[in-house]
Amino acid sequence: MADYVGPLHSWLIKNGLGESVNHTLVVSISLFVTLICACIVLGHLLEEVKWASESIVSLILGVGTGFIVLIISGGKNSHILQFNEELFFIYLLPPIIFNAGFQVKKKHFFRNFASIMLYGAAGVFISFVIISFGCRYIFPHLGLNLAPRSYLALGTIFSATDTVCTLQVLSQDETPLLYSLVFGEGVVNDATSVVLFRTIQKLGTASINGLTALGMFADFIYLFLSSTVLGVAAGLLSAYIIKTLYFGRHSTDREIAIMTLMAYLSYMIAELFYLSGILTVFFCGIVMSHYTWHNVTESSRITTKHTFATMSFIAETFIFLYVGMDALDLEKWRLADKRQSFSIFGVVIALVLVSRAAFVFPLSAVANFFTRSEAGKITIRQQVIIWWAGLIRGAVSIALAFNEASLTIFTRSGSTIFPDNATLITSTIIAVLFSTVVFGMITKPLIGWLLPPHMRRPAVDSEPSSPKEANIDHTVDGNLELPLLTERLQNLRNGVARRSSLRMLLEAPTSTIHRMWRSFDDAYMRPMFGGRGFVPILPGSPGSS
Amino acid sequence: MADYVGPLHSWLIKNGLGESVNHTLVVSISLFVTLICACIVLGHLLEEVKWASESIVSLILGVGTGFIVLIISGGKNSHILQFNEELFFIYLLPPIIFNAGFQVKKKHFFRNFASIMLYGAAGVFISFVIISFGCRYIFPHLGLNLAPRSYLALGTIFSATDTVCTLQVLSQDETPLLYSLVFGEGVVNDATSVVLFRTIQKLGTASINGLTALGMFADFIYLFLSSTVLGVAAGLLSAYIIKTLYFGRHSTDREIAIMTLMAYLSYMIAELFYLSGILTVFFCGIVMSHYTWHNVTESSRITTKHTFATMSFIAETFIFLYVGMDALDLEKWRLADKRQSFSIFGVVIALVLVSRAAFVFPLSAVANFFTRSEAGKITIRQQVIIWWAGLIRGAVSIALAFNEASLTIFTRSGSTIFPDNATLITSTIIAVLFSTVVFGMITKPLIGWLLPPHMRRPAVDSEPSSPKEANIDHTVDGNLELPLLTERLQNLRNGVARRSSLRMLLEAPTSTIHRMWRSFDDAYMRPMFGGRGFVPILPGSPGSS
Repeated sequence: MADYVGPLHSWLIKNGLGESVNHTLVVSISLFVTLICACIVLGHLLEEVKWASESIVSLILGVGTGFIVLIISGGKNSHILQFNEELFFIYLLPPIIFNAGFQVKKKHFFRNFASIMLYGAAGVFISFVIISFGCRYIFPHLGLNLAPRSYLALGTIFSATDTVCTLQVLSQDETPLLYSLVFGEGVVNDATSVVLFRTIQKLGTASINGLTALGMFADFIYLFLSSTVLGVAAGLLSAYIIKTLYFGRHSTDREIAIMTLMAYLSYMIAELFYLSGILTVFFCGIVMSHYTWHNVTESSRITTKHTFATMSFIAETFIFLYVGMDALDLEKWRLADKRQSFSIFGVVIALVLVSRAAFVFPLSAVANFFTRSEAGKITIRQQVIIWWAGLIRGAVSIALAFNEASLTIFTRSGSTIFPDNATLITSTIIAVLFSTVVFGMITKPLIGWLLPPHMRRPAVDSEPSSPKEANIDHTVDGNLELPLLTERLQNLRNGVARRSSLRMLLEAPTSTIHRMWRSFDDAYMRPMFGGRGFVPILPGSPGSS
Repeated sequence: MADYVGPLHSWLIKNGLGESVNHTLVVSISLFVTLICACIVLGHLLEEVKWASESIVSLILGVGTGFIVLIISGGKNSHILQFNEELFFIYLLPPIIFNAGFQVKKKHFFRNFASIMLYGAAGVFISFVIISFGCRYIFPHLGLNLAPRSYLALGTIFSATDTVCTLQVLSQDETPLLYSLVFGEGVVNDATSVVLFRTIQKLGTASINGLTALGMFADFIYLFLSSTVLGVAAGLLSAYIIKTLYFGRHSTDREIAIMTLMAYLSYMIAELFYLSGILTVFFCGIVMSHYTWHNVTESSRITTKHTFATMSFIAETFIFLYVGMDALDLEKWRLADKRQSFSIFGVVIALVLVSRAAFVFPLSAVANFFTRSEAGKITIRQQVIIWWAGLIRGAVSIALAFNEASLTIFTRSGSTIFPDNATLITSTIIAVLFSTVVFGMITKPLIGWLLPPHMRRPAVDSEPSSPKEANIDHTVDGNLELPLLTERLQNLRNGVARRSSLRMLLEAPTSTIHRMWRSFDDAYMRPMFGGRGFVPILPGSPGSS
């Protein structure tokens, strides 16, 4: 924050004007807010059109505006359009990932947890190795020689898929298995890529051998576990605070503030300790929707559900506008070797296609091998969709590319001055634009073709406890919840008495773990942190402010 | 936005580390969010205590944290705590003022519109003249000689009252007349002060005569009217867009996004054209709560009501924490003449007390002279409360003081290096802290003493169409609204037929204007922009997303 003062004051002095605010900032904010409004209205109007998603509209509008701004400024000034990784990682990414965790159907997510981890962690490693080696052997033929470390960085940059655009195409209700797999993979993938990227940056110029690879792996496991624990802890703390403090005296506005701020705080604290904020805030969202959300007033529930969704929606639109505008940053294009940029882009897209196929199909076979029920297996059509839906590269790739460019070579005020870095960034931008627009447009029709409505398995259980499902009509009713609770406790007692847990675990691992978790949840967690059916109904609780 | 890139990149290079975000920023955001959470929890726990309001808790917590940070940094670095007017005017003030307009009881506000304008516009002029002349004659005796322009700036800085703290003390339901007067004055006062401040800054070093004073007045009228028109236009546009586009196909998240973004856009566009964003966003809030709010789904209504209140609440807490922390900025204190700062503070507080008395009591007499009904007159007890509640000086004063200091003398990276400016800022900070804590703590007991519950006039009509009143149980019902509408149209026809409008206008001006406005609203505005009872009920409308 302190950094703002410098430029503002120098600007004020330079202009000798009595403005209370930085006028350049006012202009760019006004422009951006107007564009976001336009995207929302256009997105609503184009909702019926098959190929158009809100992200594609935003990208196109962003490119268009960038073009107009360039013409107005005579092609000179493109400084307002600069992509800013700080803005992206600190303000735009957290609401998107948090909302994803908050709205996800927990049952589906945890049922497919093993497959998701396979794709999201093991898959990224496979993809990273293939892209890194591919670039290492092909780039010198195109006249681009990079340091060994840079190839590894390229591997992570192009292994990060974009969840935002994919989520707009897949439907949680129509294709629950696919949605949870693609979405879950997207989140774990983002986290893995960022963690991998940081590990590589720590390497510096050191060469890679078996020992460093093992160290990287240990680092990854540590980051994954600690980030998850932090997220869960933050979520449980918020549930505990609201349950304890607000007992008998609710305050809707304070509840909403506490939930929003503690979710954001979990992300910032993860970043503070160099963990993965993405993973932390995702798990914080899951825990908050399972416990905290049930401890607040009915008004708070409706408000948080829609506020988080809206914040995520605005952040997504912002990012795509931003990327679209940045694509026309002339300074970068002038420095970059255009022919080289396009051939690099071609190589990268080919490597992305191959490397993703190289892990989706083998890992799906592995996942199917361990799944007993026929219904839980991933069909070949679904595998094709998983492969295709994860091809899109987004803002995470661009943010990592900028970060890499800013570190390898000295840059002046954010713009790359070394041609190789400019080429790296421009080719990343073309890859992102191409994959979002072309792959993104094809995804929806592809799903329609591969999975016609009659082949889609409907969701077996609608899980009304998730914020995604709740609406006004669903008021929490203590009498309605009690039978459910008694039934569960009964099941637990019978189950334990009848069969040994160990044999059950061996026979049907996921469902047994799920059942054990539920009994633990009912016996220890819910009484302490609240949750559906465990919060007494307060007189005047719904609607009080 | 582009300004962030420079410091971030230079920081990254300086540290040679592979961080994706600026770690200093992460530390300060984490600290701030933690403190806001602490303020909310403490505020809730202290709600029963009479003297404590959330702003006082925030101020004290801010001072305490500033103290700890100072000790940890060995008294060297207080850079994180720097007050930043850009942050204040661009991000924190708009949600507070918008929410005020959105939640205000429109009927009471417009019924007392004339009195509010008297206090807020004429009052500020009187206060400004008294404080400016007072400083002009007393300061030289304290060894402080400023340019003539600076005395005028001081006059506006200390004429800006703080609405935030006052609103937490007064209750809209218990004392509706007082609330609407004090609150309405606060908003108009903020706008007048900022407009006056800008007009003075435009003066430069020119001397003041009758002609420039007239020019200033014309400038003020122009700014006031154009800002209001812009705010009303933005509100109506949002109502029209939502009514037209979303007809028959609602989308809660898009509606919320459109409302939030257009409100913010109105503020930014006002700033873009050098108008008063405060006035614009305030009127935008009023229009949105009258039209737009009735065109959206039930979920959107609950969400916007609570989201706007929560945003405003977080921004208020943030400001008071900020001011509290800034009070301990050692760099300023080292430069400032401490003895002089305290005597200036004393003079300023005395002038604030006198100048406010000098306009509240005479202008109340004027307002009472024009009020026919006994119930509408402002009693002497109420006048004392109005005088007292407006004594608090807040963040607007500090922001203006920083702005003034940054313009008169060259400053390096936001810290004042010229002793006179440092003295100006430190005395402003003491005045703000003192008035908020001391005056603020006394206000609540004072109201209890001057206006015991049996003397408070309850609100005659509860106006259920205002977002402040609505809760879940209040669903819009077409059948319930229709009789109300028919009755109004009937009244309109009878009224026009029976008596001439002109005679009514002369006899009871405010109520006649109100009735004429209502019939115009029913006949032309509501059919076009929607509003209570004018939006057909859509099947599945509540709860759809």
